[in-house]
This record gives sequence, C-alpha cells and structure tokens, in this order.
Amino acid sequence: MRTQVAIIGAGPAGLLLGQLLYKAGIDNIILEQRSADYVLGRIRAGVLEQVSVDLLEAAGAAERMHAEGLPHDGIELLFGGQRHRIDLHELTGGKRVMVYGQTEVTRDLMAARAAAGLTTVYEATNVQPLDFDGDQPRVTYEHDGVSHTLQCDFIAGCDGFHGVCRASVPPQQIRTFEKVYPFGWLGLLSDTPPVSDELIYAHTERGFALCSQRSLTRSRYYLQVPLTEKVEDWSDERFWDELKLRLDPEARAQLVTGPSLEKSMAPLRSFVTEPMRFGRMFLAGDAAHIVPPTGAKGLNLAASDVGYLHQAMTEYYQQGSYEGIERYSERCLRRIWNAERFSWWMTSLMHNFPEGGGFDAKVQAAELGYIVRSRAAATALAENYVGLAL
Amino acid sequence: MRTQVAIIGAGPAGLLLGQLLYKAGIDNIILEQRSADYVLGRIRAGVLEQVSVDLLEAAGAAERMHAEGLPHDGIELLFGGQRHRIDLHELTGGKRVMVYGQTEVTRDLMAARAAAGLTTVYEATNVQPLDFDGDQPRVTYEHDGVSHTLQCDFIAGCDGFHGVCRASVPPQQIRTFEKVYPFGWLGLLSDTPPVSDELIYAHTERGFALCSQRSLTRSRYYLQVPLTEKVEDWSDERFWDELKLRLDPEARAQLVTGPSLEKSMAPLRSFVTEPMRFGRMFLAGDAAHIVPPTGAKGLNLAASDVGYLHQAMTEYYQQGSYEGIERYSERCLRRIWNAERFSWWMTSLMHNFPEGGGFDAKVQAAELGYIVRSRAAATALAENYVGLAL
Repeated sequence: MRTQVAIIGAGPAGLLLGQLLYKAGIDNIILEQRSADYVLGRIRAGVLEQVSVDLLEAAGAAERMHAEGLPHDGIELLFGGQRHRIDLHELTGGKRVMVYGQTEVTRDLMAARAAAGLTTVYEATNVQPLDFDGDQPRVTYEHDGVSHTLQCDFIAGCDGFHGVCRASVPPQQIRTFEKVYPFGWLGLLSDTPPVSDELIYAHTERGFALCSQRSLTRSRYYLQVPLTEKVEDWSDERFWDELKLRLDPEARAQLVTGPSLEKSMAPLRSFVTEPMRFGRMFLAGDAAHIVPPTGAKGLNLAASDVGYLHQAMTEYYQQGSYEGIERYSERCLRRIWNAERFSWWMTSLMHNFPEGGGFDAKVQAAELGYIVRSRAAATALAENYVGLAL
Repeated sequence: MRTQVAIIGAGPAGLLLGQLLYKAGIDNIILEQRSADYVLGRIRAGVLEQVSVDLLEAAGAAERMHAEGLPHDGIELLFGGQRHRIDLHELTGGKRVMVYGQTEVTRDLMAARAAAGLTTVYEATNVQPLDFDGDQPRVTYEHDGVSHTLQCDFIAGCDGFHGVCRASVPPQQIRTFEKVYPFGWLGLLSDTPPVSDELIYAHTERGFALCSQRSLTRSRYYLQVPLTEKVEDWSDERFWDELKLRLDPEARAQLVTGPSLEKSMAPLRSFVTEPMRFGRMFLAGDAAHIVPPTGAKGLNLAASDVGYLHQAMTEYYQQGSYEGIERYSERCLRRIWNAERFSWWMTSLMHNFPEGGGFDAKVQAAELGYIVRSRAAATALAENYVGLAL
C-alpha cells in the first residue's frame, strides 16, 4: 500500500491535515489506534482562534461551526469577588474567538473526510513509523489481525502526547522542555445553559474555576483541585457546591446545575519537543507540545502546526520546494513558545499555588488588579488570547 | 526636647520628608545613626520617576537636578546579541525618567535642610522609638555620651531595612513577605563617559548586565554574579572584561573603561511589611519594603511613601483630619505591590536563573521577543518603568 502522506492519529490535527492535503490534491491515509467513537468521546477544548477558524474553512469543514458556534467578544476575570470584563474585540481591533467544542470539530472533519471518500484505518494496532531518516519512509501496522506496510513520502505524527511517533525518535536527536503544576483540573460537562454569555475565569482563595461552554445548552465547568483528588470522590452535588463557592453572588444565583454527562481529572503540564521534524517525519499538535488549558491554546496550536505542515507539503508537491519542510520546525516553535509563555503566565496568574507563600499571592493580586486598570496590560492578555498573528 | 515629627534616618526618605514637612510649617527633627559623610558615601539608585521629581520640586531641592540631571526618553533591552529600544516617552504619552544619582539627591536635600536651619542629629546612638501605640510617643537616643529624650506627635521610621523602627514593632502586629533571588549584583562606579546615551539592560547567557549612569562623565555598571562571589576577587580589569562579554559588539567597541571609584556586591531581595503604620509610628522606604534594583523602583517608592506621609501630616495639622493617617498604609501598599510585581517581573525577565531549567529560559526568550514585537507589551513595561500614577 502506498500514499503520499501517512498521517498517524485521527484526532483534530490529523483529520484537519488530511482535509487540507486532500484540497491541495495530496493523497493521504490516516491510521488511528482507537475507534471513531472513542476519539469522539474525548472531551477537550472549546475555544478557537481566528487562525483555526480560517483553517477549518480552508478544509471545507466550517459550515456547522459557523451555524452553531458562538463568537465571543470578551472574557470575564473574577477576583476579589468581582467580575471584570476583558473586551477582546475592542482591545484587539476587531478580533474575537469562536466557542465550538473540539468534539464537534472532530465530528465535522470526520464527516468531510467520509464525504471525500478518504481512507481512515481505525483500530490500527502496533503502528510503527520506520525509515523516516531516509528517502523511503513507511509505516507498519496491524488491522484485524493482518500486518500491513504503508509506503509513503512523508509521515505526519498527529498521535498525541503518548503517541508512537515522538517515541520512535532516537533520544539523542530530541530535546524536551517540561514544567508540571502542583494541581489539576476537575471538569464537568452538562446539558445546562451556561452561567454567563462569556467565559468566566475565577481566581479565588479556594482555587481557580473556569465557567466554559460548548453551546447555548451545554456547559463545561472546571475546578482547580489537588492532584491527589480522585474523580470518583466528586459527586455532581459536591462539584456544583464547590463551584458555587468560587463564583460571585450574581453568577452563583444564575448557575443552573444538572446531571453530569462526563467528569474527568486532568493534570496541568507544559511540554515542548525540539525539533519537530526528523527527516521525513513531522510532529504536530500534542505529539510535540502540551500547554496547560488555561489559555485555551492546545487545539489552536495543533491547528497552526497543521497549517504550516500543509503549506510545506503543498510547496513541495506543487513547486518542488523543500524550504517549507526545512523551516517547519522553526516556524511552529516560534508560535508554540509564545503560546507556552502565555499559557504558563495565565496559569500562574489565575491559580492558587499552595507552595507559593505570601509574596507570590500578593504579586498575583497586584497583577490581576493591574490588568483590569491598564489598557496596555489588558491588551497584552487579549491579543494573546485571540491568538498572535501567524 | 520636643518636635512635631521625629524622623529616624537621614537618607533620602527622611530628608525629603523633613523638607516637605518644613514647607508645610510642620516642625521636625532627624536622628541619624551614621555621619553625614557615611550617608553620602552609599552608592544607590539613579533613576527618578516624575512623581519623585515633583516631590523634590515641592521640597525646594530640585534646582541642581534640573540643571545637571539627564532626562531619559527610553531604555534599551539587549538580548540575542541585539539591542532593542523601548521608547518610554512615546509609549506613555510623553512621560520620561530623570537620571540623577541618589547621592546627589541626598546632597541637595542636606543642603536645603541646612539652609532652612533644621536640626539633624548625626551619629545618634541607641535610638529607640517608644510609646508609639499611645498619644505621646517619644524617641530616646544618645549623642556624645549624653542621653536624650525627644517628645513628639509622630515618629517617621525612615531608617532602612536594618533600622530600629520596624524592629521595635511587636512581631504579632506585623506581617512580612519576602523573596530572595539566587544571585547578586556586583556594581562598579567610574568617572568614565557612559557607553550609551540610554541605559542598557542586557540579558545574556553569561548573566545579566546593566549599563547605567549618573552623569555624562560618571558611569555605573552592574554584573549579575553568584552570591558566593566576593568583591575583592574582582579586579577592575576582571570586571571590565566580563562586562564586555555581556555587551553587543557596538557597545563593546564604545565602552570606555577606567579605574573604579567604588565596587560593591548587593544581594537581590523582594520584601514587604504590612501594615506600615503602628499607632503614631509610620514606616517609609526601605524600612518597610525592598525591591530588587532591576526596575529602578527603590528610591521612587521611598519618595512616594513620603509623599503620602507628608499629605497625611499636612491634613492632620492643617485640617485636624485623621483620614490620611488612617489610610497611609493602604495607599502606600497599593503602589508598593505594583512596584514589587514589576521589579520581580523585570528581574525574572532579565536574569539567568541557574536552577530554572530549559523551560523557564525558553519562556524568558519568548517573552523578550514578544515585548519588542508587541506595542501592548512594550507599553506595559514602559508605563511601569516611568511609574504608574499615584
């Protein structure tokens, strides 16, 4: 079996890349370890930058997003018991973000791929990228008990943090950067109307909380909790009770609670791999980098990696140019480090740090106050939140 | 002996307060443990915010500063081997800073105090503030072997970080916040022309360096060094050689070296005391708070404390109002925490952190790059550097 680009991983990065390559006339096959249902069951991000919206349009998978997604012009910071609006739209000269769940993005990309008749091999096991340091890379895998070899020009590693692609690189060729945080996020998804039109980022003495949303009838809430907490110890009632304690009186009164559709615990991590290209294999998205979710950058970074990779592939196949391929890593990493900085900063700003001591907490309070008083500081937050230019 | 306000400490904070009170017709005596020559021998800050300039004008001690001081409209950030100018004046709508050494400020205030015929007791020993929790505070001290008691309405503790005033407060009435940094600054003063018209803040792999100045013919340079370094191990030649390694080629070529007038090592510390008033005793300046020198905020914070204290005293003596006295601590601390945040941030941004690991260094590089590309981020730096509004 042979294709031009073998894509490993059918999450939003792999699917988006597949659609963009297809639109450029570049043949591709996706291999995914899990089932389609499993992929759709993962609850993830829900805030898209304009860059991501543009790429979904280019991929021909933006129709439902534009119909059902919710453009947001601002976010709210809650601290000292009061909410302060950051007017993203006004501060950035007209930019906004699109609230539309990653699950829906994935569903739309799957549908577009099916409509185009492209091949996705789900439940492919023992996937192994090989010979990517030479001219004839290939991927071996098993499916329904049969061994296969997929010959290709390039391998795109869109297989996430725990994927096989990064793990296949000899350790001496790779450098990793990491930061872990002393807490996690406990998330709850429910079919209840959001507590507020816009997202609320709450900094309280009990810890951080985020009131997010997926649609006008589906809400996603998060609580900062110690890493030692177990999701099974959190009944829906306990979750809602704790969330209320972290909201201002108005939001507390407006909060509509209901049974959870899903609850999960996620650790917070900053992680970057350098470089992101190894011969003819590229890493994109979570396979190469992780941000803590506070700045809503994870999915958007995956999309911008894919944007650069699509551009590199197109230049190669249409013009025979190798430049985009050679610059892929550098282009991605510049954007990634900006987003890593912002995500680390916003995480540090909004959470309670048990080890931080009094000085850090006071500085945090001073910075929150400064952001809502200074147009420059608010603009810096806003321009990063909506996404710096590609 | 009796006065209205007993000021402990004849550094710039105590001297400025004395002059402002004198102009408002409020009687004051300063007690200083050291000699006048010793006070003048301490080499300290050299960058004044407009707020400090205004207070020196109000104190009638600004004439020589306006004649000899150097208004600066910008600073330069050097990283990745290149200098980037932050245009303070343009970014803040016309604000600037005044480069004028703390030694000169002190000298001018001493001269004004002498001209006004006000009492300063130098080499006062065993100074002890007493009964400040009641209506009749007093200060006891010894001078030339004779014991004295100074009765007063208020005590102003302008006696620095190691002073007696803060140490006289019962520990259970005071809360302190502190952060120490794993490096110090080695400073060198020389009668050589500054390497550049404006200050250069240099971030390099060898550590931070600051090219500062006191006048057109007197320079002050600093090197980040480990706390274990001893000043006697640094010959002038070694200092200049190391400084050159931390500059860009142009600055390296322009640097004029010469014999040092002074060399000293200073640790970097963030420190805040809350509250800053204890009955009828007020703390002001370094007695209450320390910032690392990176943001040039130490002397300016002392001046703004004194500004609030002068206002409170004037309202009390002229209008019988106790409000300024009761709000002194809160007013000062709001400004102090903003400056603490900025000083910590600029210190974190510019120095090498040996323990930081790769992630922090990458985030630091991303932030430096972001600051010079983003008008919002550069403005946030600039507006803090010139001083947020009182």
